Amino acid sequence: MIDPWGSAKLEYQDLIENFGVRPFSEVLDEVPEPSWLMRRGIIFGHRDYERIISAMKKGEDFAVVTGMMPSGRMHIGHKMIVDQLRWYDRMGAEIFIPIADMEAYSARGVDFEDSRRIAIEEYIAGYIALGLDLEKDNIHVYLQSENLMVEDLAYVLAGKVNFNELRAIYGFTGSTSMAHMYAPIIQVSDILHPQLDELGGPRPVIVPVGPDQDPHIRLTRDIAARFRDRYGFILPSSTYHRFMGGLTGGKMSSNRPKSAIFLSDTPEEAEAKIRNAKTGGRETLKEQRELGGVPEECIIYETLLYHMSGSDSRLEEIYESCRNGTLMCGECKNNTAEFIRKFFEELSVKREKALPAARRILEG
Amino acid sequence: MIDPWGSAKLEYQDLIENFGVRPFSEVLDEVPEPSWLMRRGIIFGHRDYERIISAMKKGEDFAVVTGMMPSGRMHIGHKMIVDQLRWYDRMGAEIFIPIADMEAYSARGVDFEDSRRIAIEEYIAGYIALGLDLEKDNIHVYLQSENLMVEDLAYVLAGKVNFNELRAIYGFTGSTSMAHMYAPIIQVSDILHPQLDELGGPRPVIVPVGPDQDPHIRLTRDIAARFRDRYGFILPSSTYHRFMGGLTGGKMSSNRPKSAIFLSDTPEEAEAKIRNAKTGGRETLKEQRELGGVPEECIIYETLLYHMSGSDSRLEEIYESCRNGTLMCGECKNNTAEFIRKFFEELSVKREKALPAARRILEG
Ligand code: SF4
Ligand code: SF4
Repeated sequence: MIDPWGSAKLEYQDLIENFGVRPFSEVLDEVPEPSWLMRRGIIFGHRDYERIISAMKKGEDFAVVTGMMPSGRMHIGHKMIVDQLRWYDRMGAEIFIPIADMEAYSARGVDFEDSRRIAIEEYIAGYIALGLDLEKDNIHVYLQSENLMVEDLAYVLAGKVNFNELRAIYGFTGSTSMAHMYAPIIQVSDILHPQLDELGGPRPVIVPVGPDQDPHIRLTRDIAARFRDRYGFILPSSTYHRFMGGLTGGKMSSNRPKSAIFLSDTPEEAEAKIRNAKTGGRETLKEQRELGGVPEECIIYETLLYHMSGSDSRLEEIYESCRNGTLMCGECKNNTAEFIRKFFEELSVKREKALPAARRILEG
Repeated sequence: MIDPWGSAKLEYQDLIENFGVRPFSEVLDEVPEPSWLMRRGIIFGHRDYERIISAMKKGEDFAVVTGMMPSGRMHIGHKMIVDQLRWYDRMGAEIFIPIADMEAYSARGVDFEDSRRIAIEEYIAGYIALGLDLEKDNIHVYLQSENLMVEDLAYVLAGKVNFNELRAIYGFTGSTSMAHMYAPIIQVSDILHPQLDELGGPRPVIVPVGPDQDPHIRLTRDIAARFRDRYGFILPSSTYHRFMGGLTGGKMSSNRPKSAIFLSDTPEEAEAKIRNAKTGGRETLKEQRELGGVPEECIIYETLLYHMSGSDSRLEEIYESCRNGTLMCGECKNNTAEFIRKFFEELSVKREKALPAARRILEG
């Protein structure tokens, strides 16, 4: 049986087997209009997603929280977050987007003013260009350093968290700076503060994260439980998504310009990066006709999996014709490069247009 | 030679001998119009007071920072802080009065709402009743939990402070709560934030403290030095004052109602507490006539030393006539009890009248 999303499902078994994350496939059929990221297995796991499904079905209040780290350049790997938020926006969520400027300071030495500038020019403008209207009333973008409610809740939460516990999770030592040690608690506060009475009180909250973030989700849920009596917190739910790999192998990274396509790349640069990417094709055309390609090992295919957001049938077609040797890498790459160039032509116009709105958003 | 302020000068030698605090007497003559607390040796030590003197003489900008812990009841021992602030107000200082509600939470479990109420009703009303006009433009009273600038500076400072260092100073362990560990950094921020550019930039700052607070002053100065390049901080100066002893021996404490006269005591209660206080008198009148009393061991005398703010000559008279056996404890206590009753009669009226202003101050 052919499974075009197969490789996704095979990953991150540890989280599912040992840490109580559930396969997303178990709840997929219950989701009202599952997003293509869910259908394709890119979102592969969850905790307590049932209560989010229930809220969506009943039209009840629920919130999404997903942070933005204002460092480096926004790349195409970040687009998946925006795609998820657009979907939640359609499903009626209230959306909170903390900009982690306090963490950017403690982890990378970026000061608050630089964080603000990077957030506006790179990320907020990018989010808007990718189709999320951040000026809508149900969407709240904020800098951690400007959100007194979040900072104060963090301090209250910090009353029931200690050094030993943070050391066990994050490997802190006695010489870790206090700012670095305190940063996770601010993030916990980002996730929990939508349930404060001032913002409408306890309700389901969903946090879409990568699998590396799960220790942090567990800490958040632990702390939420410790303050249930005081605030009535409902334990936050989470989903887990895969990341698209880097164009040069390894991970996409702002630090390695060739590993990723950046939102600020010109259409020509973006196209060239695709044309240089490694495919899952065979040594010769003859071999490829006989054996078919290996889309599971193909960056071109992965790019389409993550970014061709239309119907799944077109993707399935490519998968099958690659596997059965009727599609050659030259043509396939050509089509994808074209698709990406066109996407970036439109994006660069949209980014430019988004800048004034991006500035307005952080001016309150 | 008779020295009516002698006992004060003998205390806290350790701080002066081993930690670099200088005797206040060394700079007393330079102070433009020294307060009675300075003259009487109640303020007995300092660090870098020269730059405060210089600012006062030249009419240059300087600031005073002294916190208010909103827990328990305000007692007559706290009055000395207000007396110092009144003097600095006359000397042209800008005055910052942080209300340590974040510390009250982490150290004593008082939540922010309770802190606010206690701060208004006990402390702010008390400060106003004792003659400090907190609504003046040069005086800034704030709750830590409502001061974003202080919280953000604390986080920046926390980038260069670590657990080992705080453990050495405060004895924290791995199971100390993060809030508790973070509280000293917020206090450091309280002291340093008046030097931020937004508030006028670097300038001399004086922090009047009790000797037990010196480790905290040293930490503050260390941290200020680490951020000198970034903010141009001038190391804060400090003065050290003695505390009036408790009426029943030991320290004055909100927890032991008989140990202190509270601002909310009725004039009759205050008077009774004085009448029950232990004196430095002899067993019999005859003995007292022959040997004189021991004002150094007399709570009545100490009360006068700390609270009879008028001229020093009246106090010297009492000291001498006690020592030479012409003043008997009965009369002396009578006079003092009268003095205190009258003081409290006026105070209770003023406290009542101060409440609306106290509320206004925290409503911004
Ligand atoms: S045909 Fe397309 S999907 Fe298949 S290996 Fe080649 S580039 Fe990849
Ligand atoms: S005469 Fe006054 S000062 Fe002297 S011991 Fe008696 S009460 Fe104290």
